[in-house]
Amino acid sequence: MSNDRTMILGMHLGNGYGSQGAAWRFPGVDPANYASFDAQVRYAQAAERGKFAFLFLPDFPGLQGDLASESPQITLEPMLTLAAIARETARIGLVATGSTTFNEPFNIARQFKALDVMSHGRAGWNAVTTSDPGAAANYGQTIAPRPERYQRAHETIQIAQALWGSWQRDAWLQDTAAGRFADPEKIQPINLQGQHVASRGPLPIPPSEQGQPVIFAAGGGDNGIELAGRYASGVIGAAFTIEDARSQRAAVRDAARRAGRDPDEVKFFAGVMPAIGPTKRAALDRRVRLGEHSAPARVSYLGSMLGLALDARQLDEPLSASQLTIARASEFDPRSARALEVAREGWTLREILAHGVIDYHPTPVGTAAVTADHMQEWFEAGACDGFWVSIDVNEDGIDTFVDEVMPILQERGLFHHDYEGSTLRDHLGAPAQYGLDPRVS
Amino acid sequence: MSNDRTMILGMHLGNGYGSQGAAWRFPGVDPANYASFDAQVRYAQAAERGKFAFLFLPDFPGLQGDLASESPQITLEPMLTLAAIARETARIGLVATGSTTFNEPFNIARQFKALDVMSHGRAGWNAVTTSDPGAAANYGQTIAPRPERYQRAHETIQIAQALWGSWQRDAWLQDTAAGRFADPEKIQPINLQGQHVASRGPLPIPPSEQGQPVIFAAGGGDNGIELAGRYASGVIGAAFTIEDARSQRAAVRDAARRAGRDPDEVKFFAGVMPAIGPTKRAALDRRVRLGEHSAPARVSYLGSMLGLALDARQLDEPLSASQLTIARASEFDPRSARALEVAREGWTLREILAHGVIDYHPTPVGTAAVTADHMQEWFEAGACDGFWVSIDVNEDGIDTFVDEVMPILQERGLFHHDYEGSTLRDHLGAPAQYGLDPRVS
Repeated sequence: MSNDRTMILGMHLGNGYGSQGAAWRFPGVDPANYASFDAQVRYAQAAERGKFAFLFLPDFPGLQGDLASESPQITLEPMLTLAAIARETARIGLVATGSTTFNEPFNIARQFKALDVMSHGRAGWNAVTTSDPGAAANYGQTIAPRPERYQRAHETIQIAQALWGSWQRDAWLQDTAAGRFADPEKIQPINLQGQHVASRGPLPIPPSEQGQPVIFAAGGGDNGIELAGRYASGVIGAAFTIEDARSQRAAVRDAARRAGRDPDEVKFFAGVMPAIGPTKRAALDRRVRLGEHSAPARVSYLGSMLGLALDARQLDEPLSASQLTIARASEFDPRSARALEVAREGWTLREILAHGVIDYHPTPVGTAAVTADHMQEWFEAGACDGFWVSIDVNEDGIDTFVDEVMPILQERGLFHHDYEGSTLRDHLGAPAQYGLDPRVS
Repeated sequence: MSNDRTMILGMHLGNGYGSQGAAWRFPGVDPANYASFDAQVRYAQAAERGKFAFLFLPDFPGLQGDLASESPQITLEPMLTLAAIARETARIGLVATGSTTFNEPFNIARQFKALDVMSHGRAGWNAVTTSDPGAAANYGQTIAPRPERYQRAHETIQIAQALWGSWQRDAWLQDTAAGRFADPEKIQPINLQGQHVASRGPLPIPPSEQGQPVIFAAGGGDNGIELAGRYASGVIGAAFTIEDARSQRAAVRDAARRAGRDPDEVKFFAGVMPAIGPTKRAALDRRVRLGEHSAPARVSYLGSMLGLALDARQLDEPLSASQLTIARASEFDPRSARALEVAREGWTLREILAHGVIDYHPTPVGTAAVTADHMQEWFEAGACDGFWVSIDVNEDGIDTFVDEVMPILQERGLFHHDYEGSTLRDHLGAPAQYGLDPRVS
C-alpha cells in the first residue's frame, strides 16, 4: 500500500467512562457519567476536534456485566445519545449498532433517517444480527437459527434502504407561492414483502444532505461477510494480528466484488485500544491502576493462554525461568502469541495484563509514537482502511489521543488535517444514495 | 369547582409549522421547518417560557395527508425531536405518543426511560393502540380486533412500567472508594409473560429524578377509558362541548376509582385551538388567510353539518334567510351546533369556516381575553384539569399565547406564575413511582 491514501478513524463511544471496566472509578472521572449525556457530548466534541470521521456506539438490547464492580459497556440508549450529539457537533459521523433481529424495519428506518436529517447527513447504521439468548428473552423470544436471522437481516436492511429512498431527491418542493408542499408522484410506497418482515411505506421523512444513512456491518463468519459485501460502506472489524485483519479485509472486499460493487467502497476498520503515557512505564502504570481490581481474577485465564497453571499469588512476579521454558501460546485465543511475547520481556503478571493482552483489541503501550507506529504498520500492511479507536478512560484519554497521536500521523501524511466534506458519506468516500427512481429503472 | 386549583397546560407540537394545514406557507414561516429541529427547539423554549407543564407530540407510524398541498401533521420522529428539546430546555415535560400495537415493550421502555434520564425526569408516554390499516401495512401486518389490541396495550404498558422499575431507587451506588458500581440485588429481572408480548429484563437504565416516565392515554371508548383509569396520569381529551368534556372526564375518574386509584391523580386535558388577534376581525382574518386554499373544498361538508346543500360559489356570502330557516345542526358531528351558532351571526361561509367549526378542537376567536374566557369557563365548569393547546402557526402564535393569554389567566388566579417543581410528576401532581420493591411486597 502506498502513502497516497490516508487512514479514516472512528471513535468508540460506550458507557460514558471509557473502554476499561474500572474507568468509572478512575481519578478525575465522575462516577455518575453513565447517565450523563453532557459527558457523551463532551467526548464527541473532543473526537470532532480530532477530525474523527465517525463515532461508533455499539449496542446490545439488554443489561450485561457484573454491575457489582463494573459499569455496563454501552450507552443508556444509542439513538437518544446520538440525537444529543447531533445537535452539539457539526461534522463527525454518527454510527450506532441496531439489531435487525429485534427491531421492526419501519421503526429502525424511521429513527436512523430522522437522525440523518437532524445531523444534516451524518448518520450510519451498524446493522447486526443478535444471537444472545438473554437479549431474545427481553423480547419474549428465543434465538432463531443463523440462516433465519441472516435472512431477516437482509430483508430488514433492504426494506430500510427502500424506505429511506421512498422520497426522491427532489420530492419536497416547499413551493409556498404555488402552494405545492411536495410532489406526491415522487413519494411512493415500497411494498416490500419478505419472509420475516415487510413494509408498505413510504416513510414520513425527506432525504438528508447525504440522501440516506450509511450501512455499517460488524458480523464475522461467512454470513456476516456476505452481508457486509452487499450493503456496508464501513465494517467494524475485530482482529488481533495484521494477518488476521488483512484476511478479514480481503474477505469483505471479495464479497463486495461478488455483489457487483467496487471493493474500495467498503472501508474496513481495525480496532485499537491504545495505552499512552509520557513513557512506557507511565503508560503501563495507568493500565496497572485500571486493572488493580480485575487483575487477580484474570491470572488464571492468562495462564490458559500460555499453557501454564498460574494463580494470583504470582501477580507481582514475572514468569520463572522454568515457566518460560514450557510456556506456549494457546491456539484457542488469537491474543496468546502477543501475551507470550510480552511475558518473555520479563514483566510481572500484573504488567503483562496491563499490556492489554486479554483486552478486546490490540493495545500499543508506550508514548503516542508507539500507537502511531502501530497504526502506521497495520495501515501500510493493508490490514485496514483505518481504525476504530477505543480509549481506556475517555475523560482525559480522547484529548491525549487527539493532541499527541494525531499530530504524528498527520506529520507522516497518514491522516487528514481537516474534514474534506460535511456528510458521513463524504468522510467515507461512499457514493451518494437517494433511493431508486422508478422512472429510470 | 373552586378557584383554589389552577389549570395545567400542555403545548401541542407537530410538524414544525403549526396545527393549521396551510401554516407551512404562512408569511414569516420557513417552509423547510418540517425537517428543522432548530424550529422545534425554539417552539419548545417558547412554551417553557410560558410555564407550560408539558409538550405533547402526537405520533402515527406512517405518512398521512395530501402532501401536494399540505404538510404531514406530525414530527419526523418524536423521540429524536424530544431528545433535542430535552437538551435545550430545563423544566417543561416531554410527552409523545407511542404505539403499543407496533412497538416491542423492551424497545419503547428503553427509549422513554433514556429520555426520562436525559431530561432529568420530564418524560411521559402517551400509550395508544393503533387501528389504522395503513400503519399496520408499514409493519407487514393487518389490524387485530380491538380486544386483542387492548390486551396487548395492557401487557405492553405493564411490562414497560416493570422494566422502568427494574432498578430500585437506590440500586446505583457509584461508590468509587469501595469499588461498588451498583447493588445487583436491587437490579432484578421482571420475567413478565403476556399473551402477546413478554420480557425478562432488567433494563440497562437507572431511575430518573422522577423515578420513571409518566403514562398518558388518549383513547376514547370503554377500552380506552379503562386503560386510562388504570395507568394514566394525564389524558389527552378531544371534546367540543363542556358537557362532552365533563362526561369524558367523569368517565376517566370513575375508571381510576374502579382501578383503586385516587381520581385526582388522573388529569384530563381538553383541546383548544385559539384564534387570537388584536380584534375579532383580525383574529378571523388570520384564519381566513390560513383557510384561503382549503375553504372551497370544505363548503360541502359544512353544508352537511347544517343540513344544507352548500357549494363553493356561496363562499363569500352568508347563509340566506331561507337557508337559515331550514338549517339544523347535524347529530352526526358534535361541532355542528357551534357551526349553526356562528352561521346565525351572519358571517360568510368562508368566515364561518375561519371560526374553526370543522377544526379538531374548539376555537375561541377574538382577542386573548376571548381565549382566556373560554378556558376559564371550561375549567370552572369541571370540564377539564387543563388544556392541550394547539397553535395555528407556531412561529408567532406560541409567543402570542404566552404573552397575551397567560397574563390574563394568571391575573385571574387560574394559572401558575412559575414551575413549582422540576419533574413532569411535579407538574402533574402525579405520585412518585420507582417500581416495585420485592422486599416489601
